[in-house]
Amino acid sequence: MKMILDLDTGIDDAFALAYAIAHPGIDLIGVTGTYGNVTIEQGMANTQALLTLLGAADVPVYAGRAIDGFEVSEASARIHGRNGVGEVDIAADDAQSAGDALEFLSEAAAKYGDDLVIVPTGAQTTLARALEKDPALRGIRMVSMGGALTVPGNVSPAAEANISQDPVSSNTVYQLAEDMTMVGLDVTMQTQLTRAEADSWRGTPAGDVFADMAGYYIDAYQENNPHMDGCALHDPLAVAVAADPDLVDCLILPLQVDTEGPTIGRTIGRWDGSEVETRVAVGVDVDSFVPDFIDKLAQLFGRLVQNQ
Amino acid sequence: MKMILDLDTGIDDAFALAYAIAHPGIDLIGVTGTYGNVTIEQGMANTQALLTLLGAADVPVYAGRAIDGFEVSEASARIHGRNGVGEVDIAADDAQSAGDALEFLSEAAAKYGDDLVIVPTGAQTTLARALEKDPALRGIRMVSMGGALTVPGNVSPAAEANISQDPVSSNTVYQLAEDMTMVGLDVTMQTQLTRAEADSWRGTPAGDVFADMAGYYIDAYQENNPHMDGCALHDPLAVAVAADPDLVDCLILPLQVDTEGPTIGRTIGRWDGSEVETRVAVGVDVDSFVPDFIDKLAQLFGRLVQNQ
Repeated sequence: MKMILDLDTGIDDAFALAYAIAHPGIDLIGVTGTYGNVTIEQGMANTQALLTLLGAADVPVYAGRAIDGFEVSEASARIHGRNGVGEVDIAADDAQSAGDALEFLSEAAAKYGDDLVIVPTGAQTTLARALEKDPALRGIRMVSMGGALTVPGNVSPAAEANISQDPVSSNTVYQLAEDMTMVGLDVTMQTQLTRAEADSWRGTPAGDVFADMAGYYIDAYQENNPHMDGCALHDPLAVAVAADPDLVDCLILPLQVDTEGPTIGRTIGRWDGSEVETRVAVGVDVDSFVPDFIDKLAQLFGRLVQNQ
Repeated sequence: MKMILDLDTGIDDAFALAYAIAHPGIDLIGVTGTYGNVTIEQGMANTQALLTLLGAADVPVYAGRAIDGFEVSEASARIHGRNGVGEVDIAADDAQSAGDALEFLSEAAAKYGDDLVIVPTGAQTTLARALEKDPALRGIRMVSMGGALTVPGNVSPAAEANISQDPVSSNTVYQLAEDMTMVGLDVTMQTQLTRAEADSWRGTPAGDVFADMAGYYIDAYQENNPHMDGCALHDPLAVAVAADPDLVDCLILPLQVDTEGPTIGRTIGRWDGSEVETRVAVGVDVDSFVPDFIDKLAQLFGRLVQNQ
């Protein structure tokens, strides 16, 4: 399958990027740059540095759209580091955009149709604009990381971080996207990478970088989620579900994002008779996904050394 | 099975009461009086008048516990009428309590054990006190009407009416009750009684009363929920699920009730590693339940005339 990642890179975005590159069933045809963990510019720079590190410098990166006045939150900077990748030096340079994300998304939809899957893992501003502009995108398969249906949010009791950035755009996305799976905190918080598992990647240049990023991320998790023994694998789980939908059990329901009031940013069922339904993942086969994620990254890091 | 209903009677509580009496698989051994739609006193008086109307005046009614300062909300009075039963004259007299609800619940649990099911359909204050006081109650099967997991609340974006009355007690209930099914707005708003269906009950004294109550309730629904073509069958669905658990598909998860903040009164999954899980109904076989509910009440109303 052809995949486009919409990333705000971000440590778990880096994991998702590596997993998509490592996965033999996925042909990563491009990355669009969104915001949340970092600015669009920082995220694109991080993505390009990581693509180079991972032997995939030919994958194009396209600039997306942000809301006016976006600033990285203190919480994001603490969890992902000021540079988004846990203060690890990945030799990120200024970002070079291959073009406009909206045009790229539309061209890819026209070219690949049912063989395309779009995986947004940050704020959904770009995706909302693309869905509004190009009806042909509405039937494209999408697997989004974001939201929380059956569990509390992580930036407020109601809101998950990605959705919280631009609830109005996310509400648009869930009303227009006709083939959408939501991979939210309901399932991603069940997945977990331990420090020992991340350290098993060490011994190659890329493996060391990813183990270092994971270590930074796990430190933040230990502060915020002391009952966990590692970090959640939010964004890579969305990539995994795109490749293998059977990894999750889903509720199917029309979904809204609350755009005002005390529950702003909440993803919740809607009563207004909307016919567009979302598959919301509420169960996940952790024992299949987590070892596969760790193994595929380890294999990728090993291959990169052999290919040098 | 032996059943205890914990009612704040209320129009849909009246439906639940009639359905329990009508159902050949249910032996209604008592009703405990709670509050919400009405005060405890009004609810008990309504229950006793309805029991008499339905040929079940021998079913004892026990006084439960309310929070201090409870007053019926304007919304409740509008939806259920000032007297709780849609301003229909059911000849309600002063309530006569057969004793203390907490003692009755404990005695029934000791006597009937696995054959007992408790169905709370109002504020859960009494049930929380009973579960705190008597650990033997914690293993008893319960099916509660209340809450909303995957859909918005009905008294606030977060809170369903029953839970909103006493979120602290409801949080206690979901932490202590080990065999609990939550029948909330997720499923009850999918069930629907139309005016024509309710009018099909007319022609007997009880049938006329129930059709009149339904008419009042449906008027309120048409104001509040113009997309619906009737009223929801909240409380009777909980009775039906108690009799036939296969009527609903459930998520199984540890559940909390938010007791403060912007989402106060919300039922939502909990992260703190609680081992007590609740079955939360998220799908319902509407086509089995609704016709069965209408038919069983019609048969009951007919039998009452024959037995006179």
